[in-house]
Amino acid sequence: MSETSPPIFDDTFASRFAELLAWRRDVRRFRREPLPDGLVEALLAQAELSPSVGHSQPWRWLRVTDAAQREAVRANFKRCNADALRDYEGERARLYASLKLEGMREAPEQIAVFCDHGTSQGHGLGRKTMPEMLDYSVVAAITQFWLAARIAGIGVGWVSILEPDVVREALGAPPHWKLIAWLCVGWPEAESDVPELVRAGWESGR
Amino acid sequence: MSETSPPIFDDTFASRFAELLAWRRDVRRFRREPLPDGLVEALLAQAELSPSVGHSQPWRWLRVTDAAQREAVRANFKRCNADALRDYEGERARLYASLKLEGMREAPEQIAVFCDHGTSQGHGLGRKTMPEMLDYSVVAAITQFWLAARIAGIGVGWVSILEPDVVREALGAPPHWKLIAWLCVGWPEAESDVPELVRAGWESGR
Repeated sequence: MSETSPPIFDDTFASRFAELLAWRRDVRRFRREPLPDGLVEALLAQAELSPSVGHSQPWRWLRVTDAAQREAVRANFKRCNADALRDYEGERARLYASLKLEGMREAPEQIAVFCDHGTSQGHGLGRKTMPEMLDYSVVAAITQFWLAARIAGIGVGWVSILEPDVVREALGAPPHWKLIAWLCVGWPEAESDVPELVRAGWESGR
Repeated sequence: MSETSPPIFDDTFASRFAELLAWRRDVRRFRREPLPDGLVEALLAQAELSPSVGHSQPWRWLRVTDAAQREAVRANFKRCNADALRDYEGERARLYASLKLEGMREAPEQIAVFCDHGTSQGHGLGRKTMPEMLDYSVVAAITQFWLAARIAGIGVGWVSILEPDVVREALGAPPHWKLIAWLCVGWPEAESDVPELVRAGWESGR
C-alpha cells in the first residue's frame, strides 16, 4: 500500500482536464507513422487503473499486427457497413456513404479489446443481478485508454461496425472472450474540438 | 466550430493525470455534507463530452432526492445483496458479509444513470451489429464523470447489486430507459490509491 499523501488537483489541472475532454475525438483519419516503442504499453497500463466490478479486471487487449488478420477484420467491416448503408434512403444514404467511419488501413496500431467472461477474478462480486457489469468494466478501461492516448497526442477510433463473433474467430481468441471494441490507434491527421459526425452534419441532416 | 488551437499536454499534466487514475476509487464511505451548489451540474457537463456511438448521447441522469424513492432502491440493494451472500460459503461468505458495498445512506447525491434505448439521435449509426454500443456510450460518460469528480475531491461509488427493472420502476422512469448505474456521490471519508476490495483481501482470500 502507498504511503504517499493524496494529491490535490488545482484549478490549472482541472481546466486542462476540461480541455482534454473537449479535444478527445473518435479519430478515423490517421497518419501512417508507427508509434514510439513502449507507448502503447504505457497507455494500457494507465487504462488498467480503471474501475472494474469486484476488481475483476476482465479486459484482454489483443494487439493485431498480422496483415491477414487485419484484412479479415476489415473485410467484415466492409460487409457490415454495406449492409448498414441499405438501412438509409435518399439524402441520408448519400451522406452515410460519404462518411469515413474507420481508419483500419492507415492506423499503425490496431487493438481488439475483449471481455473475459470466463474469469474467476472478483469471485462474481457485483455482477449477479447485472452481469453486464463485466463488459462495462472493459468500456471504462477503454475510456481511460482514450484519454491517456489523447494526452500523448495519439488518436483513437472505436470501430463498432463489425460482427463480434466473426472478429473473435478471425483472431483465434477463446470463445469466452467477448469483443467489446476494435480500436484504431495512431497519430491523427488533424485535431478538432468538434466531433467529425457533427462537422459532417449527420445529426442535422434529414 | 472552435477557432482555438489544439492544446498541448505537457509532462506535468500527464503525470498529474496518472495520479488522478491512481487515486480514483470506487467509494462506499461518504461524509454526509451536501455538495456545493452547481457542482454536480458542472461534472455532468464534463461527462457529456464523452464519446457516444453515432453521437447519440443516450445518457439520461436522474438525480434522486426523494427519500421514499431512495429507500425503495436501498431495499432492493439489501435484498439482492442478501441473495448474493448465499452464493458464498465459509470464510469467503464471512468476508463478503463484512464488506461495505454501497454508501446509499450517507452519500448526499445519488444519481440513477439510464441509457435511452428509444432515442433516434445518431440515426442508428454504428450500432446495427453491436446494439450494446448505446449502453457502452453511457458507461464512457460515467467514467468521465468519475474522473472529473475525483479532480474536485468528490468520491463516486457505482452500485450494481440491484435489479435494473425494479429500480427503473421505483423511479418512474420510462420503460425504454435501461438502468446502467446507480451512483453514490459525495465527499469521501478517506482517500487511497489502493482499491477497497484489495485492502479487504477479497481477491487473495480463499
